[in-house]
Amino acid sequence: MTQYRAPDLDRLFFPQSIAVVGASPKTGMRVQGNNYIKGSISLDFKGKIYPVHPQAKSILGFNAYPSIRDIPGEVDLVIFSIPAKNVLPVMEDCVAKRVRFVHSFTAGFSETGIEEYAAIEAKLVAMAKEAGIRLVGPNCMGVYCPEGGLSFQPFLPETAGPVGFFSQSGQFAGMFVMKGAALGLRFSKVVSFGNASDLKAHDFLAYLGQDEKTKVIGSYLEGLKDGREFFQVARAVTRQKPLVIYKGGQTEGGSRATQSHTAAIAGSPRLWQAVCRQAGIISVDSLDEMACTIAALQGNPLPQGNRVAILGGAGGGSVTMTDIAEKGGLAVPHLSPSTIAKLREIVPPEGTSVKNPLDVGFAAFTSDNFLKLIDLLRDDPNIDALIFLQPAGMFYRMLGRGIARAMIEHSLEARKRLGKPMFVVVEQDDAFGFPEAAKEVKDRYEDEKVPILPSFEMAVRVANNLKKYKDYLASPAQNPQTD
Amino acid sequence: MTQYRAPDLDRLFFPQSIAVVGASPKTGMRVQGNNYIKGSISLDFKGKIYPVHPQAKSILGFNAYPSIRDIPGEVDLVIFSIPAKNVLPVMEDCVAKRVRFVHSFTAGFSETGIEEYAAIEAKLVAMAKEAGIRLVGPNCMGVYCPEGGLSFQPFLPETAGPVGFFSQSGQFAGMFVMKGAALGLRFSKVVSFGNASDLKAHDFLAYLGQDEKTKVIGSYLEGLKDGREFFQVARAVTRQKPLVIYKGGQTEGGSRATQSHTAAIAGSPRLWQAVCRQAGIISVDSLDEMACTIAALQGNPLPQGNRVAILGGAGGGSVTMTDIAEKGGLAVPHLSPSTIAKLREIVPPEGTSVKNPLDVGFAAFTSDNFLKLIDLLRDDPNIDALIFLQPAGMFYRMLGRGIARAMIEHSLEARKRLGKPMFVVVEQDDAFGFPEAAKEVKDRYEDEKVPILPSFEMAVRVANNLKKYKDYLASPAQNPQTD
Repeated sequence: MTQYRAPDLDRLFFPQSIAVVGASPKTGMRVQGNNYIKGSISLDFKGKIYPVHPQAKSILGFNAYPSIRDIPGEVDLVIFSIPAKNVLPVMEDCVAKRVRFVHSFTAGFSETGIEEYAAIEAKLVAMAKEAGIRLVGPNCMGVYCPEGGLSFQPFLPETAGPVGFFSQSGQFAGMFVMKGAALGLRFSKVVSFGNASDLKAHDFLAYLGQDEKTKVIGSYLEGLKDGREFFQVARAVTRQKPLVIYKGGQTEGGSRATQSHTAAIAGSPRLWQAVCRQAGIISVDSLDEMACTIAALQGNPLPQGNRVAILGGAGGGSVTMTDIAEKGGLAVPHLSPSTIAKLREIVPPEGTSVKNPLDVGFAAFTSDNFLKLIDLLRDDPNIDALIFLQPAGMFYRMLGRGIARAMIEHSLEARKRLGKPMFVVVEQDDAFGFPEAAKEVKDRYEDEKVPILPSFEMAVRVANNLKKYKDYLASPAQNPQTD
Repeated sequence: MTQYRAPDLDRLFFPQSIAVVGASPKTGMRVQGNNYIKGSISLDFKGKIYPVHPQAKSILGFNAYPSIRDIPGEVDLVIFSIPAKNVLPVMEDCVAKRVRFVHSFTAGFSETGIEEYAAIEAKLVAMAKEAGIRLVGPNCMGVYCPEGGLSFQPFLPETAGPVGFFSQSGQFAGMFVMKGAALGLRFSKVVSFGNASDLKAHDFLAYLGQDEKTKVIGSYLEGLKDGREFFQVARAVTRQKPLVIYKGGQTEGGSRATQSHTAAIAGSPRLWQAVCRQAGIISVDSLDEMACTIAALQGNPLPQGNRVAILGGAGGGSVTMTDIAEKGGLAVPHLSPSTIAKLREIVPPEGTSVKNPLDVGFAAFTSDNFLKLIDLLRDDPNIDALIFLQPAGMFYRMLGRGIARAMIEHSLEARKRLGKPMFVVVEQDDAFGFPEAAKEVKDRYEDEKVPILPSFEMAVRVANNLKKYKDYLASPAQNPQTD
């Protein structure tokens, strides 16, 4: 049983009808009202779409209506894309129409710091509350839910997946979907909720926490108006699924910027880190790190510890990769003596190293030796995870296309038999005259739904993130006996 | 006058004749001896090339000789690419032949930790010293000098430039040339010097320091056998040209790895940071950061302070960019009141911010407004530098190709009139369906020899690096009156 109550947001993500106030007969990407309609078209929305416009008869092929009250059927979700000074009368229409949800893309309220505008927002919230309407925003992009057929912009992926995301920044909501998509992530529900004047961070977290389609949750937050509730919901949710959060406003200047962005008070960075530690939240420092961490969570068991083997670099790389790994919270230990002895049988002695980081030379990459090596790492009690740098272009140049392609298959096979997390890095640099090599590796991995990471540094961050989450789950503190 | 003595390495970088012992009639990239010959061919080496091989009559079109002694003319540089056990007799030949320089690609000496092999290295050095031969290495890639026609691998750029680079890792020497080339860097002299058993880091630094063709120096180091000399030379050199160093072996594991890599003792990270501070060395954490820092040094004045304006991001980006900048040692201050007032005249009020980071909307990007904005930042006493995120793909989508291309020209023009450092970031992510957009921007900038940086994070690091170097040059400590 969950220890928190989630609001019923089913009809927000799966409305049977949406109205867009501020749709326009004008064309172009910059008419955001129309982008919601285009987004729904692109995702094959099954319900009714009602553009609302004072004069237009038809917008984007749909019958348009002069006001919410004139719409013939029920309306589950109304989207505001109108000047801020016009929202209150439209809200009156929504109340009269008994709509379920209002999402206000419209901005220009409390985030301006101007009292008069903040008062309009307060009135909007009060009207919604009295009528039982739940409000998303204002000052936000709203919903992307491929299964429900909703999107705040066209061109987002049509297929759904297990990732939930809630964001205080609309820009980041779209960016994260696109960055994630490039890594193979697909989404259950995404919501940008801006000023959080009614529905707040903990509401969305609770909803995604109990949502069976959502297996892992990401979030971009600036400041919490609901710190206590959020902490409690997060503590409960992280026992069931990972929660990865990128927190903005962690410096003086950044904190100042949050106020004009979403009217949020960012709070102290130290407090936030304490919240993350105690609630099992995986705290990240960029959208890229969030996307990579979520991708790695989907494709890997959690590591038993922080001891990694590193394979695929060489020379100066061995030194600097060890530096980066150890600065990043990992250990790069010696392999066990029996592993080293057996490696000596398959790795030639000159110009190689069977120490960790492994520099095994080409002999280990040209035959079944690679899988033997993987078996040795699987059985080595000193090693919790493997970071493998797939040298795409170099293989093409040094070994030829045939062997390079076989190596891709070997590395996919290796992931299955290792039985420990394997973080695969493919660098995009084409230093060897084979710009197609990295793409071929990426495509094959994508076919197999295996994430690849863009850099060794990112693999280190991701491995450390997974390890800290594992530690949290294993710690007694998060399983109080009084539950 | 310089306060250090540089060894005469002219004939190392500009030999009139080279002999490669261990060239081979076999083909393939993995015969490193031949790669030196191929490298020289590709760079149109003007001198004599003598392959040395016990049986072969001809290698890669050059007459081959059974030993160094059999070569008809003088030999400036001999390259060893043979098994370690064979180097001493070949060195005897070099002594008899009175060659000037020996570079030993051959590895398998002190870096193995095996006393017997270390003794061979010691003997090699003793023989060289007695004969007045200077030795590069052993265990290193050697020289890339496009002007001199030398290269340790084919496919490196043929044109020379003002960047000098000396590296304890051979892999990193090649990688850095390629990474740098992608950013537009071109090189005067590059040398990988491995175990540094004779010529050491401070020798190469001193040589590059007094070399008129070298305007900025980079280095990858693992450990210094010549710490005191290096510090003194570095102090003198950094008054004349910037010195950027990436130091490996900064953790326990990394330090262990340096010993098996180049037999170097890494020393404590804290000591190294003190050396950098006191000698005006720009310390970086990756080859990428080194390449970007050097590129920025070439194309910008040094900033007067750490206060940056940020232009080109929006929304959540404003918050997180401020966080990243302030965590990275920069300040993101308010613009001056007069700048804000004048900005209000060209930036529309809705959905924008004339605070810093600036979120100026499309109006400022579609006309001369952009250059007006640059003039305001030029004249703003609160601002020392500008980070400009050129949103390539978004411009293409939102504004069309014509305006997007005009914006590239505007931004190039802006760099000239700003009179302060302008760090331009073009992200490679194509989130807007225009994969060609970033490439078009890159190409135009490359035409104009203006560096672009791959990420905002990198721009912050680079800006902070330049600012610290500026502070060092301005500090009285580095200009002792006793000079």
